[in-house]
Amino acid sequence: MKVNTILSIFTPKDVKFLPLLKELTEVMVQAASLLHDLFAFTEKEQRSEICKLIKAEEVKGDRISGRILKELNNTFITPFDREDINALADKIEEAIDVINRSAQKVLLYFPGDFPPATVRMTEIIQKGTLEVQGAVDGLSHLQKSDAAFRKHYKEIKTLEENADGVYEKGIMDLFREEKDSVELIKLKDILQELEKTANKINSTGKVLKTIFVKYA
Amino acid sequence: MKVNTILSIFTPKDVKFLPLLKELTEVMVQAASLLHDLFAFTEKEQRSEICKLIKAEEVKGDRISGRILKELNNTFITPFDREDINALADKIEEAIDVINRSAQKVLLYFPGDFPPATVRMTEIIQKGTLEVQGAVDGLSHLQKSDAAFRKHYKEIKTLEENADGVYEKGIMDLFREEKDSVELIKLKDILQELEKTANKINSTGKVLKTIFVKYA
Amino acid sequence: MKVNTILSIFTPKDVKFLPLLKELTEVMVQAASLLHDLFAFTEKEQRSEICKLIKAEEVKGDRISGRILKELNNTFITPFDREDINALADKIEEAIDVINRSAQKVLLYFPGDFPPATVRMTEIIQKGTLEVQGAVDGLSHLQKSDAAFRKHYKEIKTLEENADGVYEKGIMDLFREEKDSVELIKLKDILQELEKTANKINSTGKVLKTIFVKYA
Repeated sequence: MKVNTILSIFTPKDVKFLPLLKELTEVMVQAASLLHDLFAFTEKEQRSEICKLIKAEEVKGDRISGRILKELNNTFITPFDREDINALADKIEEAIDVINRSAQKVLLYFPGDFPPATVRMTEIIQKGTLEVQGAVDGLSHLQKSDAAFRKHYKEIKTLEENADGVYEKGIMDLFREEKDSVELIKLKDILQELEKTANKINSTGKVLKTIFVKYA
Repeated sequence: MKVNTILSIFTPKDVKFLPLLKELTEVMVQAASLLHDLFAFTEKEQRSEICKLIKAEEVKGDRISGRILKELNNTFITPFDREDINALADKIEEAIDVINRSAQKVLLYFPGDFPPATVRMTEIIQKGTLEVQGAVDGLSHLQKSDAAFRKHYKEIKTLEENADGVYEKGIMDLFREEKDSVELIKLKDILQELEKTANKINSTGKVLKTIFVKYA
Repeated sequence: MKVNTILSIFTPKDVKFLPLLKELTEVMVQAASLLHDLFAFTEKEQRSEICKLIKAEEVKGDRISGRILKELNNTFITPFDREDINALADKIEEAIDVINRSAQKVLLYFPGDFPPATVRMTEIIQKGTLEVQGAVDGLSHLQKSDAAFRKHYKEIKTLEENADGVYEKGIMDLFREEKDSVELIKLKDILQELEKTANKINSTGKVLKTIFVKYA
C-alpha cells in the first residue's frame, strides 16, 4: 500500500523544499550558537547585542517558514509528503522561537550570575542543532542502510536525556542554594525555558525519525 | 493545480460555516471587552461578577465550536477547506480560553493594584479581537484586491508587537519595583497569561492571512 | 456522504489498533495509580522509588505509541480513521507525559507537606483514567444506543470540573496560608502540573466523544 519513496518526497519537483529546509535549519544553528555566547557574557551591553542578533534570526526563520508554507500550497504533492515537510519546518521554527524566548528572558530578568547548569544546557542545545543539521543535509540521499542518518537522530535523543539530567540537577541545586526568592524565580524560569528548547530540538529529531521510517 | 477559490470555501453549501464563525468571533470580542473591564475594577464583588460573565462566554464559545466541528463532519467539502475552517475556529476558541484563564487568575490570586502594563495589555487585546472580527466579516466577499482584509491582519500583527513591548517593559518594571515576592509571583503570572492571550489573537491573524493567500 | 462506521474503524484489518490502544490506556491507568500513591507517601526513599516506576510507565507508553504510529503508516485505512486513532493515542500519551512530569516535580522540589488539594487532585486524576479505560474498552462494540460509552465521557467532563474547583481552592488557600515564598513556588508549580494532568485526561475524553459522534 505504501508507495512513498524518497524520490516522491524530494525529487524532482519537490526538490525545491530541501534548500528551504536547509536554510531554516541554518538559522536554528546560528540562533543556538548565539544563545551559547549569551550565557558566556555577563555585561549588559554585550547581552543586549546578542539578544538582538537572536531576534533577527527568529525573524529570518519566520520568513523562510512562510515561504515553505506558500510553496507547499502551490505545489502538487501527496498529502503524506506535505505533512512531513510541514511537520519538520514547524518543529524547527518552534525550536528557533523557544531559543529566542530563552534569550529574551535573560534580557528581561537580567539575573546576576548564571548557574553552571544554564551554561551546560546551552552547550547541549547547540550540539543538538548541529545533529539536526546533519540529518537535514542527509535527506537528499536517504537510504535504508543510512547508518549516518540514524546516528543523528539517536544522538539527538541522547542529548535530550543529558539535558534532562542537567536541568533536574540545576533545579535541585537552585532550590537548595538560592536564598533570594526573586533570583530563584528568575533562574528557575530561565532553566525551564532552556529545558523546553532542548525538548523542541528532540521533537525535531522525532520528526526526522518518522521520515526515515517512512521513506528510507 | 490549485483549484480552490473563495466560491469553494464559502458558497453555496458551505455558506453555513460563516454565520457560525461570526458567532464564535463575537463571543471572543465580548470576552475581551469584559477582560478589559475586569482590569478597570478593583472591588472583589465586581471582579467576581465579571469573571462569571467571561466564563459564560467561554462556555458559549465551546458550544459553538462543537457545532462547527459537527457540521464539518456532516458536510462534504474538500480537505483543504475543512482544514482552514477548522484552524480558524480552533484559534478563536483558544483565544477565548486564554482570555478566560487570564480572568480566572485575577480572581484566584486577588492581587492588590494592577500595574499599568496589565491594563494596557487588555486594551491591545480588545483592539485585536475587533480586527479579527473585521477580517471574519470580510470572508464572505474575499477578493485579491481586498486591501481592507489585508489591513486587518497587518494591524493584528502590529498590535501583537505592541503587546510584546508592553509585556517586556511590564516584567522589567515588576522585577525592579515589586519587593514583595508573593505579589511578584501573582503579577508576573497574570502578565504572562495576558501575553499568551495577545499571542493567540495573533495566531488567529496568521490563519486569516493563510486563508487570504490561498483563496483570494 | 459519511460512510464511516464502526466497522470501518476497528474491523477487520484495523482491529489490531484496539489492543495497542488498550495497552497504552493501561499504562496511563498504572501511572495515575502510582501518582496517587506518591502523594500519600512522605519519605524521600519511597517517593523516589515511585517516581522511577512512573518514569518506567512513561517509557513503556512511548514505545507503544511508536508501535501505533508505525502500524498506522503501514496499514491502509481511510484518512478519517487514521486521524482518530492518532488523536486518541496522542492524547493518552500526553496524559502519561504530564503524569510523569507531575511526579518528577515532586522529586525535584521535594516540598514539605502536601496541601490536601494535591491529594484530592490525584484521586480525581486516577478516577478519570479509569473512565477513559472504560470508554476505550467499549470501542470494540460501539453503537448509537451505547449509553455506557456516553456515560464515560460525561463522567470525564464532570471529573475535570471537580478538578478545576479543587485546583482553584487549592491555589487560593496556598496564597493565603503559605508564608514561605519558596515553598509557595514549589507547591503552586505542582498544583498547576496536576491541573494540566486533569486537563489532558479531559482532552482524551473529548476525542472519545468525537469518535462516538462520528461512528456510533
